[in-house]
Amino acid sequence: MRTAFLLYDKVTALDLVGPYEVLSRLPGMTTLCVARQRGPVSSGSGLQLYADCSLEDVNSADILVVPGAATATALRDAPELLEWIQKIDRSTCWTTSVCTGSLILGAAGLLKGKKATSHWAVLERLAHWGATPVHCRVVEDGKLITAAGVSAGIDMALILAAKIAGNAAAREIQLTIEYDPQPPFDSGSPNKAAPETVQSVKARTAQRFEPA
Amino acid sequence: MRTAFLLYDKVTALDLVGPYEVLSRLPGMTTLCVARQRGPVSSGSGLQLYADCSLEDVNSADILVVPGAATATALRDAPELLEWIQKIDRSTCWTTSVCTGSLILGAAGLLKGKKATSHWAVLERLAHWGATPVHCRVVEDGKLITAAGVSAGIDMALILAAKIAGNAAAREIQLTIEYDPQPPFDSGSPNKAAPETVQSVKARTAQRFEPA
Repeated sequence: MRTAFLLYDKVTALDLVGPYEVLSRLPGMTTLCVARQRGPVSSGSGLQLYADCSLEDVNSADILVVPGAATATALRDAPELLEWIQKIDRSTCWTTSVCTGSLILGAAGLLKGKKATSHWAVLERLAHWGATPVHCRVVEDGKLITAAGVSAGIDMALILAAKIAGNAAAREIQLTIEYDPQPPFDSGSPNKAAPETVQSVKARTAQRFEPA
Repeated sequence: MRTAFLLYDKVTALDLVGPYEVLSRLPGMTTLCVARQRGPVSSGSGLQLYADCSLEDVNSADILVVPGAATATALRDAPELLEWIQKIDRSTCWTTSVCTGSLILGAAGLLKGKKATSHWAVLERLAHWGATPVHCRVVEDGKLITAAGVSAGIDMALILAAKIAGNAAAREIQLTIEYDPQPPFDSGSPNKAAPETVQSVKARTAQRFEPA
Protein backbone atom coordinates (compact mmCIF):
# COMPACT_ATOMS: atom_id res chain seq x y z
CA MET A 1 0.00 0.00 0.00
CA ARG A 2 1.29 3.44 -0.89
CA THR A 3 0.62 6.87 0.63
CA ALA A 4 1.56 10.00 -1.30
CA PHE A 5 1.99 13.23 0.67
CA LEU A 6 1.83 16.43 -1.36
CA LEU A 7 4.66 18.82 -0.55
CA TYR A 8 4.68 22.45 -1.69
CA ASP A 9 6.29 25.73 -0.76
CA LYS A 10 5.21 27.04 2.68
CA VAL A 11 3.31 23.84 3.61
CA THR A 12 2.64 23.52 7.35
CA ALA A 13 5.15 20.88 8.44
CA LEU A 14 3.07 19.34 11.24
CA ASP A 15 0.07 18.90 8.88
CA LEU A 16 2.24 16.48 6.94
CA VAL A 17 4.43 14.96 9.65
CA GLY A 18 1.59 14.02 12.03
CA PRO A 19 -0.07 11.64 9.54
CA TYR A 20 3.33 10.57 8.17
CA GLU A 21 4.49 9.42 11.60
CA VAL A 22 1.30 7.36 12.05
CA LEU A 23 0.75 5.92 8.55
CA SER A 24 4.41 5.03 7.94
CA ARG A 25 4.21 2.66 10.93
CA LEU A 26 1.57 0.47 9.25
CA PRO A 27 2.99 -2.86 8.09
CA GLY A 28 3.53 -2.90 4.33
CA MET A 29 3.05 0.85 3.92
CA THR A 30 5.23 2.82 1.52
CA THR A 31 5.28 6.59 2.03
CA LEU A 32 6.36 9.19 -0.49
CA CYS A 33 6.64 12.97 -0.43
CA VAL A 34 5.79 14.40 -3.82
CA ALA A 35 6.44 17.96 -5.00
CA ARG A 36 6.82 19.89 -8.25
CA GLN A 37 10.45 18.86 -8.15
CA ARG A 38 12.48 16.40 -6.15
CA GLY A 39 14.58 18.11 -3.48
CA PRO A 40 14.20 20.44 -0.50
CA VAL A 41 10.93 22.31 0.06
CA SER A 42 10.60 25.07 2.68
CA SER A 43 7.68 24.68 5.05
CA GLY A 44 5.82 27.68 6.46
CA SER A 45 7.79 27.53 9.72
CA GLY A 46 11.15 27.51 7.96
CA LEU A 47 11.80 23.80 8.47
CA GLN A 48 12.95 22.25 5.24
CA LEU A 49 11.36 18.99 4.16
CA TYR A 50 12.56 16.98 1.21
CA ALA A 51 10.51 15.68 -1.70
CA ASP A 52 11.38 12.13 -2.78
CA CYS A 53 9.65 12.45 -6.15
CA SER A 54 8.34 14.95 -8.65
CA LEU A 55 4.69 15.05 -9.74
CA GLU A 56 5.67 13.28 -12.97
CA ASP A 57 7.17 10.38 -11.01
CA VAL A 58 3.92 9.43 -9.25
CA ASN A 59 0.77 8.47 -11.15
CA SER A 60 -1.23 6.63 -8.49
CA ALA A 61 -1.50 6.08 -4.74
CA ASP A 62 -3.74 4.18 -2.34
CA ILE A 63 -3.88 7.16 -0.01
CA LEU A 64 -3.36 10.82 -0.81
CA VAL A 65 -2.64 13.28 2.02
CA VAL A 66 -2.87 16.98 1.17
CA PRO A 67 -1.54 19.12 4.02
CA GLY A 68 -2.44 22.78 4.44
CA ALA A 69 -0.62 26.09 4.56
CA ALA A 70 -1.43 29.72 5.28
CA THR A 71 -0.95 30.17 1.53
CA ALA A 72 -3.06 27.16 0.53
CA THR A 73 -5.55 29.13 -1.53
CA ALA A 74 -2.73 30.32 -3.80
CA LEU A 75 -2.58 26.76 -5.19
CA ARG A 76 -5.84 27.29 -7.06
CA ASP A 77 -3.60 29.10 -9.54
CA ALA A 78 -1.31 26.07 -9.91
CA PRO A 79 -3.10 23.93 -12.52
CA GLU A 80 -0.33 21.29 -12.67
CA LEU A 81 -0.73 20.59 -8.95
CA LEU A 82 -4.53 20.50 -9.13
CA GLU A 83 -4.45 18.18 -12.16
CA TRP A 84 -2.02 15.88 -10.34
CA ILE A 85 -4.38 15.78 -7.32
CA GLN A 86 -7.31 14.93 -9.63
CA LYS A 87 -5.30 12.15 -11.28
CA ILE A 88 -4.13 10.64 -7.99
CA ASP A 89 -7.66 10.88 -6.55
CA ARG A 90 -8.92 8.65 -9.38
CA SER A 91 -6.60 5.91 -8.06
CA THR A 92 -7.02 6.25 -4.30
CA CYS A 93 -8.89 4.25 -1.68
CA TRP A 94 -8.77 7.37 0.51
CA THR A 95 -8.21 11.00 -0.39
CA THR A 96 -7.44 13.06 2.70
CA SER A 97 -6.48 16.53 3.80
CA VAL A 98 -5.29 18.29 6.93
CA CYS A 99 -6.12 21.90 7.84
CA THR A 100 -6.42 24.16 4.77
CA GLY A 101 -5.44 21.22 2.57
CA SER A 102 -9.20 20.81 2.14
CA LEU A 103 -9.29 24.18 0.33
CA ILE A 104 -6.80 22.70 -2.14
CA LEU A 105 -9.01 19.63 -2.61
CA GLY A 106 -11.86 22.08 -3.15
CA ALA A 107 -9.91 23.97 -5.82
CA ALA A 108 -9.27 20.61 -7.50
CA GLY A 109 -13.04 20.10 -7.68
CA LEU A 110 -13.12 17.15 -5.28
CA LEU A 111 -15.45 18.59 -2.63
CA LYS A 112 -18.61 19.26 -4.65
CA GLY A 113 -21.59 17.98 -2.68
CA LYS A 114 -19.33 16.59 0.06
CA LYS A 115 -19.16 17.17 3.80
CA ALA A 116 -15.72 18.42 4.81
CA THR A 117 -13.76 20.27 7.48
CA SER A 118 -10.74 22.59 7.58
CA HIS A 119 -8.92 24.91 9.97
CA TRP A 120 -11.65 26.51 12.11
CA ALA A 121 -10.74 30.04 10.97
CA VAL A 122 -11.41 29.30 7.28
CA LEU A 123 -14.06 26.58 7.63
CA GLU A 124 -16.81 28.56 5.91
CA ARG A 125 -14.67 28.98 2.80
CA LEU A 126 -15.35 25.34 1.95
CA ALA A 127 -18.82 26.38 0.77
CA HIS A 128 -17.12 28.31 -2.05
CA TRP A 129 -16.04 24.92 -3.47
CA GLY A 130 -19.48 23.34 -3.13
CA ALA A 131 -18.82 21.52 0.14
CA THR A 132 -20.87 21.49 3.32
CA PRO A 133 -18.55 22.74 6.09
CA VAL A 134 -18.69 20.59 9.25
CA HIS A 135 -17.02 21.79 12.44
CA CYS A 136 -15.63 18.43 13.57
CA ARG A 137 -12.07 17.26 14.16
CA VAL A 138 -12.29 14.64 11.41
CA VAL A 139 -15.01 14.43 8.76
CA GLU A 140 -15.59 11.39 6.54
CA ASP A 141 -17.66 11.37 3.35
CA GLY A 142 -17.14 8.20 1.36
CA LYS A 143 -13.46 7.93 0.55
CA LEU A 144 -12.88 11.58 1.40
CA ILE A 145 -11.49 12.23 4.90
CA THR A 146 -10.72 15.80 5.97
CA ALA A 147 -9.15 16.89 9.26
CA ALA A 148 -9.36 20.20 11.13
CA GLY A 149 -6.33 22.44 11.79
CA VAL A 150 -2.68 21.26 11.86
CA SER A 151 -2.55 18.84 14.81
CA ALA A 152 -5.84 17.16 13.78
CA GLY A 153 -3.91 15.19 11.19
CA ILE A 154 -2.67 12.87 13.96
CA ASP A 155 -6.24 11.97 14.99
CA MET A 156 -7.25 11.57 11.34
CA ALA A 157 -4.34 9.24 10.64
CA LEU A 158 -5.16 7.02 13.62
CA ILE A 159 -8.75 6.71 12.38
CA LEU A 160 -7.41 5.83 8.93
CA ALA A 161 -4.87 3.37 10.37
CA ALA A 162 -7.74 1.55 12.10
CA LYS A 163 -9.67 1.33 8.82
CA ILE A 164 -6.64 -0.10 7.03
CA ALA A 165 -5.17 -2.43 9.64
CA GLY A 166 -7.77 -2.74 12.40
CA ASN A 167 -8.24 -1.19 15.82
CA ALA A 168 -5.53 -3.27 17.50
CA ALA A 169 -2.87 -2.04 15.05
CA ALA A 170 -4.00 1.58 15.44
CA ARG A 171 -3.93 1.28 19.23
CA GLU A 172 -0.37 -0.05 19.04
CA ILE A 173 0.71 2.91 16.93
CA GLN A 174 -0.93 5.29 19.40
CA LEU A 175 0.99 3.69 22.27
CA THR A 176 4.24 3.65 20.27
CA ILE A 177 4.05 7.41 19.68
CA GLU A 178 2.80 7.83 23.28
CA TYR A 179 -0.14 9.86 22.04
CA ASP A 180 -1.71 10.57 25.40
CA PRO A 181 -2.08 14.31 24.89
CA GLN A 182 -1.95 16.62 27.91
CA PRO A 183 -2.02 20.19 26.59
CA PRO A 184 -1.14 22.66 29.37
CA PHE A 185 -4.12 24.85 28.38
CA ASP A 186 -7.64 24.15 27.10
CA SER A 187 -7.34 26.58 24.24
CA GLY A 188 -7.24 24.37 21.16
CA SER A 189 -10.69 25.12 19.74
CA PRO A 190 -12.63 28.37 19.25
CA ASN A 191 -15.36 26.84 21.45
CA LYS A 192 -12.93 26.45 24.34
CA ALA A 193 -10.45 29.31 24.02
CA ALA A 194 -11.02 32.70 25.66
CA PRO A 195 -12.78 35.27 23.40
CA GLU A 196 -9.66 37.48 23.30
CA THR A 197 -7.55 34.51 22.18
CA VAL A 198 -10.00 33.69 19.39
CA GLN A 199 -10.15 37.31 18.30
CA SER A 200 -6.38 37.68 18.23
CA VAL A 201 -5.81 34.49 16.22
CA LYS A 202 -8.66 35.37 13.84
CA ALA A 203 -7.15 38.81 13.17
CA ARG A 204 -3.72 37.29 12.46
CA THR A 205 -5.20 34.50 10.37
CA ALA A 206 -7.25 36.91 8.28
CA GLN A 207 -4.00 38.64 7.31
CA ARG A 208 -2.20 35.40 6.63
CA PHE A 209 -4.73 33.32 4.77
CA GLU A 210 -5.20 34.60 1.28
CA PRO A 211 -8.79 35.28 0.21
CA ALA A 212 -10.92 32.46 -1.16
CA MET B 1 16.06 34.10 20.58
CA ARG B 2 17.39 31.02 18.84
CA THR B 3 16.35 27.36 19.05
CA ALA B 4 18.66 24.66 17.71
CA PHE B 5 17.12 21.29 16.83
CA LEU B 6 19.56 18.39 16.58
CA LEU B 7 19.05 16.30 13.44
CA TYR B 8 20.66 12.91 12.97
CA ASP B 9 20.17 9.77 10.92
CA LYS B 10 16.93 7.89 11.81
CA VAL B 11 15.61 10.65 14.10
CA THR B 12 11.86 10.39 14.78
CA ALA B 13 10.40 13.17 12.63
CA LEU B 14 7.44 14.04 14.89
CA ASP B 15 9.76 14.39 17.93
CA LEU B 16 11.34 17.32 16.13
CA VAL B 17 8.42 18.73 14.13
CA GLY B 18 5.97 18.94 17.07
CA PRO B 19 8.15 21.40 19.04
CA TYR B 20 9.32 23.09 15.81
CA GLU B 21 5.75 23.92 14.80
CA VAL B 22 5.08 25.47 18.23
CA LEU B 23 8.36 27.26 18.99
CA SER B 24 8.79 28.69 15.48
CA ARG B 25 5.53 30.61 15.98
CA LEU B 26 6.94 32.62 18.90
CA PRO B 27 7.62 36.25 17.95
CA GLY B 28 11.34 36.84 17.44
CA MET B 29 12.25 33.17 17.42
CA THR B 30 14.86 31.84 15.00
CA THR B 31 14.86 28.07 14.46
CA LEU B 32 17.71 25.98 13.05
CA CYS B 33 18.13 22.30 12.27
CA VAL B 34 21.69 21.24 12.94
CA ALA B 35 23.32 17.99 11.83
CA ARG B 36 26.80 16.59 11.23
CA GLN B 37 26.52 18.06 7.77
CA ARG B 38 24.19 20.47 6.06
CA GLY B 39 21.73 18.72 3.73
CA PRO B 40 19.11 15.98 3.78
CA VAL B 41 18.83 13.64 6.77
CA SER B 42 16.61 10.53 6.72
CA SER B 43 14.22 10.22 9.64
CA GLY B 44 13.25 6.83 11.09
CA SER B 45 9.98 6.81 9.14
CA GLY B 46 11.69 7.51 5.81
CA LEU B 47 10.68 11.17 5.65
CA GLN B 48 13.66 13.28 4.76
CA LEU B 49 14.32 16.41 6.77
CA TYR B 50 16.95 18.95 5.85
CA ALA B 51 19.70 20.33 8.08
CA ASP B 52 20.28 24.07 7.71
CA CYS B 53 23.68 23.97 9.40
CA SER B 54 26.51 21.68 10.38
CA LEU B 55 27.64 21.24 13.99
CA GLU B 56 30.62 23.54 13.27
CA ASP B 57 28.27 26.33 12.16
CA VAL B 58 26.42 26.60 15.48
CA ASN B 59 28.22 27.37 18.74
CA SER B 60 25.37 28.56 20.95
CA ALA B 61 21.58 28.57 21.28
CA ASP B 62 18.99 29.82 23.73
CA ILE B 63 17.07 26.58 23.47
CA LEU B 64 18.34 23.15 22.46
CA VAL B 65 15.86 20.46 21.41
CA VAL B 66 17.19 16.90 21.17
CA PRO B 67 14.63 14.59 19.53
CA GLY B 68 14.72 10.82 19.94
CA ALA B 69 15.01 7.80 17.70
CA ALA B 70 14.78 4.04 18.01
CA THR B 71 18.54 4.15 17.50
CA ALA B 72 19.16 6.96 19.99
CA THR B 73 21.51 4.98 22.22
CA ALA B 74 23.88 4.49 19.28
CA LEU B 75 24.78 8.16 19.60
CA ARG B 76 26.75 7.46 22.79
CA ASP B 77 29.42 6.32 20.33
CA ALA B 78 29.32 9.64 18.47
CA PRO B 79 31.65 11.87 20.53
CA GLU B 80 31.45 14.84 18.14
CA LEU B 81 27.66 14.98 18.60
CA LEU B 82 27.86 14.60 22.39
CA GLU B 83 30.56 17.29 22.64
CA TRP B 84 28.43 19.62 20.53
CA ILE B 85 25.46 19.00 22.86
CA GLN B 86 27.67 19.76 25.88
CA LYS B 87 28.92 22.97 24.27
CA ILE B 88 25.43 24.17 23.30
CA ASP B 89 24.08 23.29 26.75
CA ARG B 90 26.61 25.68 28.31
CA SER B 91 24.92 28.51 26.37
CA THR B 92 21.22 27.60 26.72
CA CYS B 93 18.39 29.00 28.82
CA TRP B 94 16.64 25.65 28.27
CA THR B 95 18.01 22.29 27.25
CA THR B 96 15.21 19.95 26.20
CA SER B 97 14.56 16.51 24.78
CA VAL B 98 11.67 14.53 23.34
CA CYS B 99 11.26 10.75 23.68
CA THR B 100 14.61 8.91 23.71
CA GLY B 101 16.38 12.21 23.13
CA SER B 102 16.81 12.16 26.91
CA LEU B 103 19.05 9.10 26.55
CA ILE B 104 21.27 11.21 24.31
CA LEU B 105 21.35 14.00 26.90
CA GLY B 106 22.26 11.26 29.41
CA ALA B 107 25.11 10.02 27.24
CA ALA B 108 26.33 13.63 27.05
CA GLY B 109 26.49 13.67 30.87
CA LEU B 110 23.72 16.23 31.31
CA LEU B 111 21.32 14.17 33.43
CA LYS B 112 23.44 13.35 36.48
CA GLY B 113 21.36 13.94 39.59
CA LYS B 114 18.45 15.25 37.53
CA LYS B 115 14.81 14.20 37.24
CA ALA B 116 13.92 13.30 33.68
CA THR B 117 11.51 11.38 31.47
CA SER B 118 11.67 9.49 28.17
CA HIS B 119 9.59 7.14 26.04
CA TRP B 120 7.71 4.91 28.52
CA ALA B 121 9.29 1.72 27.16
CA VAL B 122 12.86 2.86 27.95
CA LEU B 123 12.19 5.11 30.93
CA GLU B 124 14.20 3.04 33.40
CA ARG B 125 17.31 3.34 31.23
CA LEU B 126 17.66 6.93 32.39
CA ALA B 127 19.02 5.61 35.71
CA HIS B 128 22.05 4.31 33.78
CA TRP B 129 23.01 7.97 33.18
CA GLY B 130 22.50 9.02 36.81
CA ALA B 131 19.01 10.46 36.36
CA THR B 132 15.86 9.80 38.38
CA PRO B 133 13.24 8.50 35.91
CA VAL B 134 9.84 10.17 36.32
CA HIS B 135 6.81 8.78 34.47
CA CYS B 136 5.24 12.13 33.54
CA ARG B 137 4.45 13.68 30.17
CA VAL B 138 6.83 16.60 30.74
CA VAL B 139 9.47 16.79 33.50
CA GLU B 140 11.29 19.99 34.48
CA ASP B 141 14.47 20.15 36.54
CA GLY B 142 16.00 23.60 36.46
CA LYS B 143 16.74 24.47 32.85
CA LEU B 144 16.35 20.85 31.78
CA ILE B 145 12.95 19.94 30.30
CA THR B 146 12.36 16.39 29.06
CA ALA B 147 9.23 15.07 27.34
CA ALA B 148 7.82 11.55 27.08
CA GLY B 149 7.43 9.67 23.79
CA VAL B 150 7.16 11.30 20.34
CA SER B 151 3.90 13.31 20.51
CA ALA B 152 4.74 14.65 24.01
CA GLY B 153 7.02 17.21 22.38
CA ILE B 154 3.96 19.27 21.43
CA ASP B 155 2.86 19.54 25.08
CA MET B 156 6.44 20.28 26.15
CA ALA B 157 6.79 23.05 23.59
CA LEU B 158 3.54 24.73 24.67
CA ILE B 159 4.79 24.73 28.28
CA LEU B 160 8.08 26.22 27.10
CA ALA B 161 6.28 28.78 24.90
CA ALA B 162 4.36 29.96 27.98
CA LYS B 163 7.61 30.36 29.94
CA ILE B 164 9.16 32.40 27.13
CA ALA B 165 6.24 34.54 25.97
CA GLY B 166 3.51 34.13 28.60
CA ASN B 167 0.33 32.08 28.82
CA ALA B 168 -1.65 34.25 26.38
CA ALA B 169 0.90 33.73 23.61
CA ALA B 170 1.03 29.97 24.25
CA ARG B 171 -2.78 29.77 24.19
CA GLU B 172 -2.82 31.58 20.84
CA ILE B 173 -0.35 29.11 19.38
CA GLN B 174 -2.46 26.22 20.67
CA LEU B 175 -5.53 27.66 18.97
CA THR B 176 -3.60 28.41 15.77
CA ILE B 177 -2.51 24.76 15.47
CA GLU B 178 -6.01 23.71 16.61
CA TYR B 179 -4.47 21.49 19.27
CA ASP B 180 -7.70 20.12 20.72
CA PRO B 181 -6.68 16.46 20.58
CA GLN B 182 -9.37 13.83 20.12
CA PRO B 183 -7.59 10.48 19.73
CA PRO B 184 -10.01 7.80 18.52
CA PHE B 185 -8.72 5.38 21.18
CA ASP B 186 -7.51 5.79 24.77
CA SER B 187 -4.35 3.82 24.17
CA GLY B 188 -1.60 6.42 24.39
CA SER B 189 -0.05 5.40 27.71
CA PRO B 190 0.89 2.02 29.20
CA ASN B 191 -1.46 2.86 32.09
CA LYS B 192 -4.40 3.19 29.72
CA ALA B 193 -3.73 0.74 26.88
CA ALA B 194 -4.89 -2.88 26.99
CA PRO B 195 -2.31 -5.32 28.41
CA GLU B 196 -1.95 -7.08 25.04
CA THR B 197 -1.26 -3.73 23.33
CA VAL B 198 1.43 -2.89 25.89
CA GLN B 199 3.00 -6.32 25.57
CA SER B 200 3.08 -6.17 21.79
CA VAL B 201 4.63 -2.69 21.65
CA LYS B 202 7.14 -3.62 24.38
CA ALA B 203 8.24 -6.70 22.42
CA ARG B 204 8.71 -4.68 19.25
CA THR B 205 10.42 -1.85 21.09
CA ALA B 206 12.84 -4.21 22.83
CA GLN B 207 14.01 -5.35 19.40
CA ARG B 208 14.25 -1.84 18.04
CA PHE B 209 15.82 0.11 20.85
CA GLU B 210 19.46 -0.73 21.17
CA PRO B 211 20.65 -1.70 24.64
CA ALA B 212 21.64 0.99 27.13
